[in-house]
Amino acid sequence: MEAMQFAVKNGPAIILVRPQLGENIGAAARAMLNCGLTKLRIVKPRDGWPNIKALNTASGADAVIGEALIFDDVSDAIADLDLIFATTSRARDQVKDVIFPDQAFQKLPQQIHAGIMFGSERNGLDNDEICVADSIIEIPLNPAFPSLNLAQAVLLVSYEWRRSHVKNHPPSVVKRAAAKKSDIISFFNMLEKELEYKGFYPSPSMQQKMSRNMRNMFQRIQLSEQDIQSLYGIVKALSRNIPDKKV
Amino acid sequence: MEAMQFAVKNGPAIILVRPQLGENIGAAARAMLNCGLTKLRIVKPRDGWPNIKALNTASGADAVIGEALIFDDVSDAIADLDLIFATTSRARDQVKDVIFPDQAFQKLPQQIHAGIMFGSERNGLDNDEICVADSIIEIPLNPAFPSLNLAQAVLLVSYEWRRSHVKNHPPSVVKRAAAKKSDIISFFNMLEKELEYKGFYPSPSMQQKMSRNMRNMFQRIQLSEQDIQSLYGIVKALSRNIPDKKV
Repeated sequence: MEAMQFAVKNGPAIILVRPQLGENIGAAARAMLNCGLTKLRIVKPRDGWPNIKALNTASGADAVIGEALIFDDVSDAIADLDLIFATTSRARDQVKDVIFPDQAFQKLPQQIHAGIMFGSERNGLDNDEICVADSIIEIPLNPAFPSLNLAQAVLLVSYEWRRSHVKNHPPSVVKRAAAKKSDIISFFNMLEKELEYKGFYPSPSMQQKMSRNMRNMFQRIQLSEQDIQSLYGIVKALSRNIPDKKV
Repeated sequence: MEAMQFAVKNGPAIILVRPQLGENIGAAARAMLNCGLTKLRIVKPRDGWPNIKALNTASGADAVIGEALIFDDVSDAIADLDLIFATTSRARDQVKDVIFPDQAFQKLPQQIHAGIMFGSERNGLDNDEICVADSIIEIPLNPAFPSLNLAQAVLLVSYEWRRSHVKNHPPSVVKRAAAKKSDIISFFNMLEKELEYKGFYPSPSMQQKMSRNMRNMFQRIQLSEQDIQSLYGIVKALSRNIPDKKV
């Protein structure tokens, strides 16, 4: 599967603990792959495994589901990992750092193999599960309305990981062939000559000021070669004498 | 509704253009409110308005749905706004900047009233709709698997807005009552005295080095007052002589 080849190098394992709905597992797999994460671990999925609804919902990310590792408890699921994060909005009674995802991820060296745990839809992670984590991650949302569904939580945390560890590919952007300055100046000269001919300027003393304003206005457009061609056409058309037309 | 009071000051309008499913409109409203955005505008919702499925899915964010503004076309929907972003992964033929959300949002002054357009689930935005935008926003996802559903796209873009414009509330964090250094030192002294008594150190010359290593190890724990109490208890229990027990 091509999308799997774009996996984040040494991306974290996403660990779903006691997830209930297959649809949510599938949607979480899609969210992971959206962000280039591919290592899914599942602890005690409520409806057993494999889960056909997870596979169907994952469409496009079915390879993530296909390669998921299934465990009986959290200890086994994290045994080979270096660093564990728990996502929860509860359990503040534990003596453990609660940090935002970017704080958690930005300083981690690439070679660390991390795991990020997400609890069940109903209860989240329980205290014993949170206990194995090195830190608790809190997503900085509207404090009066922070509740996300499972796949959305996986999406935001995976997105933060991607932002921290994957350099943005160069913006696919700003692809105009900028007009040469000489072409722009030629256009201004033509336009001003035409305007002068049509009696646009109230007085010679005003002409310089008005021209400068106009040049500045067009300058802001960051004109492309194509734009200059269009403007020539517009000015030419507007300048046309149409004998029967009253002005 | 309490959550609405946490609205991002001058947050952007989220503009859904020709959305199809009420469920997606409701889920988008939730995603907005998760990030403190409350101004929803909808252009030509396929199934008319009001939409009971949108309201049901929005549960908790129903005030966002209730205050949504409905328009017949994009021009009306953006008429009173200062700056328009279009989200799309197509339409690269247009001479328009394509930028990542953080690049788009970080430099915007608070008083700018922006709108962010999202196209229909089926087709996204069409070329005429994209044409009214000042810039195109692209979410930096896995290039081989970038497709998100409507509510997830709204979630990630709203999240980026929040991250750019809302200072993280102070981490709800690290709330251990750190142990006093004097208590920690007393504990070390007690432990080392006990270890010496039990013949732990192979030679006096080794004692200093081994003690220093041990102090460094415990230092890394960032001990709390409670931790110190627990450690005292542990050492005391371990030191206990139990007559019948063979060592």
